[in-house]
Formats: sequence, structure tokens, C-alpha cells
Amino acid sequence: MTDETGPRATTARRVGIADVAARAGVSVGTVSKALNGSGRLRDETRARVRAAADELGFTPISVARNLLAGRTFTVGVITTDSYGRFGIPVMRGAEDSLAAGEMIAFLCDGRDDPIREQHHLGKLLERRVDGIIVAGRRTDPRRPIGADLPVPVVYAFAPSSDPADCSVVSDERGAAQLAVEHLVKTGRRRIAHITGPQSHASANERAAGLAEALAAHDLEPVDEPYFGSWTEAWGRFAAAQLLRTHDDVDGVFCGNDVIARGVTDGLREAGISLPTQIGVVGVDNWGLVAEAARPPLTTVDLGLEEIGRRSAELLLDAINGHAQPGVHVVPGHLVVRES
Amino acid sequence: MTDETGPRATTARRVGIADVAARAGVSVGTVSKALNGSGRLRDETRARVRAAADELGFTPISVARNLLAGRTFTVGVITTDSYGRFGIPVMRGAEDSLAAGEMIAFLCDGRDDPIREQHHLGKLLERRVDGIIVAGRRTDPRRPIGADLPVPVVYAFAPSSDPADCSVVSDERGAAQLAVEHLVKTGRRRIAHITGPQSHASANERAAGLAEALAAHDLEPVDEPYFGSWTEAWGRFAAAQLLRTHDDVDGVFCGNDVIARGVTDGLREAGISLPTQIGVVGVDNWGLVAEAARPPLTTVDLGLEEIGRRSAELLLDAINGHAQPGVHVVPGHLVVRES
Repeated sequence: MTDETGPRATTARRVGIADVAARAGVSVGTVSKALNGSGRLRDETRARVRAAADELGFTPISVARNLLAGRTFTVGVITTDSYGRFGIPVMRGAEDSLAAGEMIAFLCDGRDDPIREQHHLGKLLERRVDGIIVAGRRTDPRRPIGADLPVPVVYAFAPSSDPADCSVVSDERGAAQLAVEHLVKTGRRRIAHITGPQSHASANERAAGLAEALAAHDLEPVDEPYFGSWTEAWGRFAAAQLLRTHDDVDGVFCGNDVIARGVTDGLREAGISLPTQIGVVGVDNWGLVAEAARPPLTTVDLGLEEIGRRSAELLLDAINGHAQPGVHVVPGHLVVRES
Repeated sequence: MTDETGPRATTARRVGIADVAARAGVSVGTVSKALNGSGRLRDETRARVRAAADELGFTPISVARNLLAGRTFTVGVITTDSYGRFGIPVMRGAEDSLAAGEMIAFLCDGRDDPIREQHHLGKLLERRVDGIIVAGRRTDPRRPIGADLPVPVVYAFAPSSDPADCSVVSDERGAAQLAVEHLVKTGRRRIAHITGPQSHASANERAAGLAEALAAHDLEPVDEPYFGSWTEAWGRFAAAQLLRTHDDVDGVFCGNDVIARGVTDGLREAGISLPTQIGVVGVDNWGLVAEAARPPLTTVDLGLEEIGRRSAELLLDAINGHAQPGVHVVPGHLVVRES
């Protein structure tokens, strides 16, 4: 190592945003916009600023950028999902998109408690976050977290009941359609549905999607949907009941993977050979459950990480003045295993 | 509602910290210390300040307090546990303690990637967090996240390999001891151990703890520990193998709940009546797994939330100048179900 690259050199004055502005022949504000990807600039200007920054080895420092833009480059994420099953994949996806925008997230756990949620909201606003993501664990619409908030809010997974808000949701009917397509393609014609509580939007939407998709193939569902709980015990019990009344069933679409695991156990223990006699499809692609089932579950992945990524992108857009209200639907995809 | 409590009244000048100082007859700095619970004050002074604050209806505002104390009242939590199984309960516990100290947490997901971790560390320091919690998902010691950092760091669940750091860990040997006490108390004498990979500290520590606890009862373990993987499939396979070679076994201590679930399935499918013939105990008290097992699992809860709470308390202490280096062990407790 030469003297020039030694420790002394690294403590030299850091290249500042003003140096970049001077070299590119633009204002400091234009540099900020160009490097943040915000505001409306000609592509040529943006490219010139980026080239100047590269030539000078300029890395923007958040603190300096904050002062420039009046922004804190922080976002609040309020989750109601203490156990992380739905919230964490959403959070991971959001973090990917936020990091690309040089943002960092405060995580607050609302624990389905409106008082905690309002407390967290107050704390986040007090710290002048640039925006807020509200991540739910159920697909039922929820009341908006507040009215006339000073920063944009995006609702992830659990949509806001106000259609003027921005929400990102899974494709519940599409999930049922993917399951039916797979079951029909693998030769199933007598398809039943075992799912969660009728009071849950996701159970209803998936059941409605199943009926639609079967009708598109000129098929009738086997029996009414079996509404119950999101548990293995319910899956086992319902599978036994199903076999007693409909011994010709050859396919079961389950409302989630936990139920599907119970259904596969129940069918197997009743002497049914899987998937030879009956095909089973779940929803969630929850690795732990889907992979441990016997046989491992074919299931619909709702794209939770993508919901997180999309939510963060929409929030960044809104922060930059391009709000896109309404409900944004993220499609799922089928993961084929052995069931 | 009268005019006095109407909207106009609520927009009146907010009571400030200077008002509290004047009423209590102390300096603004003393008010800050008294309300933050920091610094060294006489109890009488602290009580006087609190009384003055209560009388005036003064609620400290973080922003003002930040300026006073040179603190941001933010903490960074870097987790390596993308799936939330271990990180989220730790985080919940930490949030409880942090909220009590009026702190809010930035959550960063290191994803077991040292480059991401250093990136997050840099971002957190740039935002001048008051301290950092590093939450791991394995009990193996990990390298320190950095040397000579400007803020205190507490390692949660995965301890730092540097004993001069502050770490909060689960009681791995104690977990085995709790399991053995329960098995022996319920009449088991021929106890085997089916667990995870020998390369994991938790598998080794729990196996060592089992041997110690059996020796204390003058019992010999049935066979060497069965080291394998943290999966149900391994649990089922090992249970079958165990029965073939040791048909007198009457108790199995499993390295975690997932393995225990496989063991209960394997034993039940081999015609063993549970818990009549063989008692099974797991580790983790992971509701989803423990409650869905047949029979529901008796298991050792490692106290992850308590590890989070304790970590945050130790961090707050360190921020306030009372660092307590070393390894702090949080005891677990037995949760008795039907296995």
C-alpha cells in the first residue's frame, strides 16, 4: 500500500453533493432528485448527474439527503401478525424494495389491538416517517388506520375498507382457480372443498373461486364447502366425513396447508392411496407444513413477499408524489409437489 | 362537552419541559433525567419532577427529549432469522421492554449474510441509533458484529463469541433437565434422545444436559443420542429404528418439537400407545407443532420472549451507562400437554 492510499487519504474531505452539482452543472436540488430517482427530470440530466457522482466517487449520505429533501428516509411498518406467519414474508419483501430506495423500516407490532395500533401510529408520526405500511394477517378489509394522515399509507394483505386508500392484496379467487386447473388437468372430476371459518373473507372468496372455476369446466362441486377451522384436526375430521358421504370423491381443494395436512393424514389413515385415488391441493406454500405432509403438498403460493415488495414500491411512489389509490391484486402461483 | 374542553382548548400552547422544570424548581436537564429514568438523581427529586409533570399534564415528546439528551430513542434490531420462528418472539419481547423506555426499533433482516449485516449496521449507525440488538436463530456463538462500535450491542439467543460482549441466551442444559425431571416423575426409566445435527450447539448442549440429568437419577441413557436433522421425517425414521433395537424404551426426549412430532407419529404408527407406553417431550413450545401433534406435545418453552425482554432491558441499561457484559441465561419452563 502506498502513502497515497494509506489511512491519511481515507480521512480526506468527503466529496459532497455540492461537488457533484458543480461538476454536472446543475443545482443541488437537481442532484438530490436525480440520485433519489424522484421528481421529474429529463433522462439526459439524470444521466449527467449520475456520471458526475460516479466520477467523483460520491455516495449520498442519508443524513445529508434528509436535510435536503425534508425527508427522514424512514418508513413505519405496523403489523398485526405477532406470530410472523403472514407478516414476516410481507416484511421481507417490503424491506427489499425499501432498501432499494435507501429507506429503513421501524417495525411496530399492533397485535390486533386498536389502542396499541394508535399508539404506534402516534410514535411513527412524531418521528416524522415518510410513509407507513399496515400489514395484516387476514384478507378481510380493515378500517383505515386514520383519516387525513400527513403521510401516505399502504395496506398490505389486509386491505383498507376505504376504496380510496391504497391496498395490495392476494388473488383469493385466482388461488382457487389455480388449484382447480391443476386438479382437472390431473384427471380429477369429483372435487370437494374443506376450508376455514365461513366468517373469514379468505374462506368465502376461495370457496366462490372454486365454484366459478368448476363451472368453467362444466363440473359440479361435490357437496357444499366444508367450512370449519384452519386446523389439522378439522382437516382430519372433515376428510373422514367426506369419505363417508361421497366415496367417489377424487380431488380435495383445501383452504390452507394446515387443513390440507390434516386431510392427507385423515385420507391416508382411512386407507386411501395418495395421490393415486385422491388429489389434494392446499393454499399458502408454507414450507414447514407443505413439506412435512405425507405426501408433500401441492399448494398455491399467494406471493406474500411480492405483496410486500409491491406495497413498498407503491409507498415509495406515493412519497414521491405519485399515489396510486385502489386495490392492487398480486397473482399467486402453483407449487407442485406430490399430493 | 363545554367550550373549555372543546377544540379550541386542545390547540392551546402545549405544556413544555421548561414549565415542568420551573414548577419543580429544577433544571431542564434534571427533568429529562427524571422522566427518562436515566442518570443519578435522588428519589425525592425524581418524585418531585414526576409530580410536577403530572400536575401540568406534561407528556414528554420524543423529539424534544432527543434534543435534550443527544439521543434518538431508536434502537436497531438486526435479525438473521428471516422466517421469524425464533426472531419474532424475541422481537416481541424486546418491543415490550423498549416501549417501556419510549424507544422504537428499526428492524433489519441480515438473512445470515455478513455483507447484508454490515450494510444494515452502517445504516443504523448513520441514523445514530442509541443501541443495537443482534438476534440470531441458532444458539451457536457468533462473531461480534463489529469492534469498538459507538453504541452498545446486546446479542439475543445467539451469543457473541467474545465473552466481554453482552449476550442473552436460553438455558440449553436446563431444558434437558426439565424434560428428564418430567419423564422420571411420570415413571420413565429407559429414556432415549432423538435430536438435530451434531454440528449444532443446541443439539450438543441438550444431549449433554440429558446425560447429566439422567446421571443425577442414577439412570443410564438408552443408547447414544440419535443425531439427525430438525425434521419430522428424521423423527419418524429414528423412532422406528429405536423400537427395533430397544423395545424396552419408555421415554423419548426430542431435540425440538418438530422432531417430537415425527417421533409421536412414528411410534403411534408402530402400534405404540402414547403416552401409556412411551412418554415424549419436545423443546420449543411451538404452538402450531406442539398442539397439532397426536397426542399434543409436552415440551420445554425456552422463553424466547423473555430473552427479548431481557436483551432490551440490558441494552437500555447499557445506553444509560450501566453495561452488564457477559452471558445472561434465561431459564425455560415445562409446558405439560398429553404426550
